[in-house]
Amino acid sequence: MIDPADLTARLIRCPSVTPEEGGALVLLAGLLREAGFEVHRVDRGETANLFARWGAKGARSFGFNGHTDVVPPGDPASWRHPPFSGHVADGVIWGRGATDMKSGVAAFVAAAIGFVTDTPPDGAVILTITGDEEGPSRDGTRAILDWMAAEGERMDVCIVGEPSNPEVMGEMMKIGRRGSATFRITATGVQGHAAYPHRARNPLHALTRYLAGLIAAPLDEGTAHFDPSGVQITSIDCGNPASNVIPERATAVVNIRFNDLHDGAALTRRLTAAAQDLAAQTGVTIEVQADISGEAFLTRPGPFVDLVRDVVAKATGRVPVLSTSGGTSDARFVKDHCPVVEFGLVGRFMHQVDERVPVDEIHALTGIYRSILEEYFT
Amino acid sequence: MIDPADLTARLIRCPSVTPEEGGALVLLAGLLREAGFEVHRVDRGETANLFARWGAKGARSFGFNGHTDVVPPGDPASWRHPPFSGHVADGVIWGRGATDMKSGVAAFVAAAIGFVTDTPPDGAVILTITGDEEGPSRDGTRAILDWMAAEGERMDVCIVGEPSNPEVMGEMMKIGRRGSATFRITATGVQGHAAYPHRARNPLHALTRYLAGLIAAPLDEGTAHFDPSGVQITSIDCGNPASNVIPERATAVVNIRFNDLHDGAALTRRLTAAAQDLAAQTGVTIEVQADISGEAFLTRPGPFVDLVRDVVAKATGRVPVLSTSGGTSDARFVKDHCPVVEFGLVGRFMHQVDERVPVDEIHALTGIYRSILEEYFT
Ligand SMILES: [Zn+2]
Ligand SMILES: [Zn+2]
Repeated sequence: MIDPADLTARLIRCPSVTPEEGGALVLLAGLLREAGFEVHRVDRGETANLFARWGAKGARSFGFNGHTDVVPPGDPASWRHPPFSGHVADGVIWGRGATDMKSGVAAFVAAAIGFVTDTPPDGAVILTITGDEEGPSRDGTRAILDWMAAEGERMDVCIVGEPSNPEVMGEMMKIGRRGSATFRITATGVQGHAAYPHRARNPLHALTRYLAGLIAAPLDEGTAHFDPSGVQITSIDCGNPASNVIPERATAVVNIRFNDLHDGAALTRRLTAAAQDLAAQTGVTIEVQADISGEAFLTRPGPFVDLVRDVVAKATGRVPVLSTSGGTSDARFVKDHCPVVEFGLVGRFMHQVDERVPVDEIHALTGIYRSILEEYFT
Repeated sequence: MIDPADLTARLIRCPSVTPEEGGALVLLAGLLREAGFEVHRVDRGETANLFARWGAKGARSFGFNGHTDVVPPGDPASWRHPPFSGHVADGVIWGRGATDMKSGVAAFVAAAIGFVTDTPPDGAVILTITGDEEGPSRDGTRAILDWMAAEGERMDVCIVGEPSNPEVMGEMMKIGRRGSATFRITATGVQGHAAYPHRARNPLHALTRYLAGLIAAPLDEGTAHFDPSGVQITSIDCGNPASNVIPERATAVVNIRFNDLHDGAALTRRLTAAAQDLAAQTGVTIEVQADISGEAFLTRPGPFVDLVRDVVAKATGRVPVLSTSGGTSDARFVKDHCPVVEFGLVGRFMHQVDERVPVDEIHALTGIYRSILEEYFT
């Protein structure tokens, strides 16, 4: 049997900051092969991916999807325990990926191996695990699904094991997601001396006004199944070392999470129009480059959603809310393949310094995944 | 007699990029000693400085101030003539420092030597020449003035020989300068995922609002002798590579050129108070670090200003505007010692590639300095 907490700690010790594989997929591939899974590395571009199937190809199948890559830890000195230590103390495992989502991967790998070993089902269990969910996601789950289509591999339903609970296990599962778009905004003015601004055009002033306009008011108030859309400036960079020089160029990155009132193309038109307005006022060129990483989508409630909800309710004593809140996940790709829901751990510390996870929660999640498999194949 | 054009070319050939002395002050010290000046090297820290007096210590004295250090030439291959060649052709001298301000130093050295040689005055002529005006200016003119105070040396009035004319000789002299302050503004929030902004505190949103507030309205409309104060954001940096992560920290640099309605301490209080307001609203800490490189100052029009203006008007046919425009200069230190004005060459090519100066202008400036000395001691 695989101990999912121990596996989480071992995965954290693989420094798999996107796009580094870091040893995480190699570790999982070994365990799955040993348990009788047919395992394929489905690498594309810089990204390493894993496909694993227990049971016959083409049989009725239950899928799990997850990722082993993690966001950068920032300054390691800010962490109480080194971010790739997988330090375990007082029932808590510390490190980057503890919540998002090496624990989730460990839980479904342990549940799947336990299930097929103890009670071999009449059907197939398929695991799709990517090394690029936190990065551009071009060659990650998408590459696995492309490969599966080409190979005639399919999942009938899929759970994405991302953290789905805000505070306590069982309170929330996700049946859709807001869309996500990233805009790279480059302002180009005219360099000059800070004492002679009339001879220059300061791109940072135009950019500041542009961004202040973007965040001044909410995009909307939310819809029936969706939270309000949100705008986050995630970087502004200029790199001008001389405090008496007006720079020529500066760049901002803005991430927008949008509900079903918007789509990527309309948002791009909106941001581009605002840029043109400001350029006309300031003489500073503002270029908007859009990267639409996913449109908003919804998996309508039905038998699969009910099955997951009932197992979670029985295991935790809480009937999970059917939510579409939070970030994008690879569910945005899986939803084109089969019905998909997301259920995982509590997301509290994801992407933060001192990310960590209680061992108890990992065991609870493994139990829930196991019960879902049992119910599905009954 | 010293030929000021020839001396300019010889000074350009001394590669005195701050803080290198490059042989420039050694050359001047030799010429001045030979002409009967008492010469002292007043070096401090990394900086070489020169003090020279003709006439008795404590006598009624006229001072000049200037610098022989230059800004780096950039890529020498971009220059039509090598930047330290002092190449002379068609009545033009080429090289770094040709305008700013080896020509100005050559002009006042030649004028002073000519004057004390031909018509020895009843008084003293004092030259203060630094090797650090373009750098941090900590151990430059300030060091000379400190030394003079300790030694009981004094100037009754002083001309700083920086380029003061925007386009043609005689159009402008400076009787003060706006102050300059640089503020480093660091916003520290809470890192998090862009899809869960309620769990994070985005320092870029606070910083954007802060900066938008700073540049929303001009600080003032200018005063009798001063242009309006100006605020320039010269950099914003965050360095967050992950577009789905709200960063923890971001920094902006703001340079303020301020007139006599403000001082460095009041501006610092103002920016700090605004930061505290925004911190209270957003929960993002905003730290303001101030570096006041010079306060605004004005040499009130009076006999000394009139003398310089009248000589310039007579020599050039133009009545110079009494201006306080432009960047800072070492006049900001001299003004604490005695009345100071700035008059020099045309500033056209300063700090640029292919910096150069017409020989005629150097001779004209030398004549003006000589006439000013004659008028002063009449
Ligand atoms: Zn994740
Ligand atoms: Zn200068």
